[in-house]
Amino acid sequence: MTDVAAYALVEKDGGFVPTTIERRPVGAHDVEIRIAFVGICHSDIHTAREEWGSVEYPLVPGHEIAGIIESVGSAVTTHQPGDRVGVGCMVNSCRVCENCLAGEEQYCAEGNVGTYGAVDVDGTITRGGYASHVVVDEHFAVSIPDGIGLDVAAPLLCAGITMFSPLSHWGAGPGRRVAIVGLGGLGHIGVKIAAAMGADVTILTRSDAKRSDAERLGAHHFHATGDPSVLKGLRNTYDLIINTVSGEIDTDRYLSLLRLNGTMVNVGVSPLGYRARFGSLATNRRSLAGSGIGGIRQTQEMLDFCAAHGIGAEIETIPASMIDEAYDRVVASDVRYRFVIDAATI
Amino acid sequence: MTDVAAYALVEKDGGFVPTTIERRPVGAHDVEIRIAFVGICHSDIHTAREEWGSVEYPLVPGHEIAGIIESVGSAVTTHQPGDRVGVGCMVNSCRVCENCLAGEEQYCAEGNVGTYGAVDVDGTITRGGYASHVVVDEHFAVSIPDGIGLDVAAPLLCAGITMFSPLSHWGAGPGRRVAIVGLGGLGHIGVKIAAAMGADVTILTRSDAKRSDAERLGAHHFHATGDPSVLKGLRNTYDLIINTVSGEIDTDRYLSLLRLNGTMVNVGVSPLGYRARFGSLATNRRSLAGSGIGGIRQTQEMLDFCAAHGIGAEIETIPASMIDEAYDRVVASDVRYRFVIDAATI
Repeated sequence: MTDVAAYALVEKDGGFVPTTIERRPVGAHDVEIRIAFVGICHSDIHTAREEWGSVEYPLVPGHEIAGIIESVGSAVTTHQPGDRVGVGCMVNSCRVCENCLAGEEQYCAEGNVGTYGAVDVDGTITRGGYASHVVVDEHFAVSIPDGIGLDVAAPLLCAGITMFSPLSHWGAGPGRRVAIVGLGGLGHIGVKIAAAMGADVTILTRSDAKRSDAERLGAHHFHATGDPSVLKGLRNTYDLIINTVSGEIDTDRYLSLLRLNGTMVNVGVSPLGYRARFGSLATNRRSLAGSGIGGIRQTQEMLDFCAAHGIGAEIETIPASMIDEAYDRVVASDVRYRFVIDAATI
Repeated sequence: MTDVAAYALVEKDGGFVPTTIERRPVGAHDVEIRIAFVGICHSDIHTAREEWGSVEYPLVPGHEIAGIIESVGSAVTTHQPGDRVGVGCMVNSCRVCENCLAGEEQYCAEGNVGTYGAVDVDGTITRGGYASHVVVDEHFAVSIPDGIGLDVAAPLLCAGITMFSPLSHWGAGPGRRVAIVGLGGLGHIGVKIAAAMGADVTILTRSDAKRSDAERLGAHHFHATGDPSVLKGLRNTYDLIINTVSGEIDTDRYLSLLRLNGTMVNVGVSPLGYRARFGSLATNRRSLAGSGIGGIRQTQEMLDFCAAHGIGAEIETIPASMIDEAYDRVVASDVRYRFVIDAATI
């Protein structure tokens, strides 16, 4: 075991404090990564504030990790010291179920092992990327191409793949109309990716406040949805809607915007779920779907795509001492569009 | 106008009575059909009993029509007198919207014109197939191949296409596991079609009562779902679930049965709609979809497929004087599996 620096929540209502945590010895198939940047994902906050269930302390969140390989195990073949790599939302899976074998480890039949707060295959509790170093199986470290900064790459490991995977799976591209609901951490990367794929991209968000941002990010259309008549005028329009909103949403209203064979994919984790009328789905043969991050192979594909198209997250870099403040600002939607912690300050 | 014999509901709580109704003169693009058999669909009953909204009387239901062409308009090219034809749930559509042009008239942007109780493009109210004759645009009359009896073909025009369309669209075939929820008018045809397509077919229904029927119809597996542990044991199993149940259903439980990229399609019209948790959809990248009948081209494809595979509905033929009794028995699930009215008795 090795002690490494980390920022942790040691009790529920305390703030983040500098501490040390143990990392496992670098196994034959492991890589040790010196973390350069780690993004703050809204799910870090839901977890830290026990909004998704009880937490085992100390909690070290962070699943948008970008860094440099420091050492590798004896059997590692895919990475070497000095390589730029990323780690996303999972650090293990069973590797033998049909989904894992299909390269869709995120849907592992045994449940993938989350990067923090999860029970790993060896029984230990995983600790995330708010730390100086992390040790993971080489399979779960993806290469970050040279063309993209580690800071703006970090949020791609969760937010980026969460958007890229459904956009790719449901065929965003030339001739396809894609609407993204919500322009936050997920949505802003989704616009860039969907536009780079060649789709006709619309942003649907509550107010006009982000109209100019949407256009700058590459959206072809923008509609403020606060006025209900706006959505009425958009019925039967889109092939694909990606809903990034985690709050309650009038699912039927958004389904009505889908044209023939259209799909609405939810990626914002809504604790309330979704209610759809029969007719909302049967009209135009619509689908309401879900999607969770992406597999390791697709995560690599996403990073290569983003590097080729000059896509990174829009970020505000902070020292680790500002995590608590950043959390409050994320909850207040006061960030454009992702906080990234400079891990040198951990 | 021509008076033709029909059975109609002339007031809400009265029974069906013999009467005459007017059919429009045979227009240039119309065909006049002498009806041989007409199926009783559960939606006839919902409509007649005003469970789906208020009704304009006299109501003549019937959208599972099989008969023989008696005369054709001057511009008709696709049918001639003596041809065996069917008419399903729609008798018109705008013909110019993108869905109509794609051959998906059921999803007409203006709304297709239902075979009964709908306002036709000329402003008249449509009257259905509980009648001796019907006049429709040639485009909405499909050919019934010689290999299939008109009596067992009639229910294919609604129940058959309602099942064939999603089975075809979502790729039922060799190597695909398909579950059909409910073994009634829809389900029993669905089993036959899905099995003929080469899929591995499972029937999920409440009790064991129809186990031997399911096997005789071609199901490879059967599970009685009254015991909740049964569904638990079937998690992550199916590529496609077709839900034919119109009552309330625990959507999350059925979604949990879908494997990677699986879809649950609802074809039973549930007035309560569907509620799904985020995780039920995001796990395995599942979809919850709807489907409504099928286009005219696909309806023809379905009839050709059924004739080639010897598929007809399982029916009980009745005289028109027994419609009221048949309705009560349908509501009591006391029919295996579809009532068909012998139109010679109308």
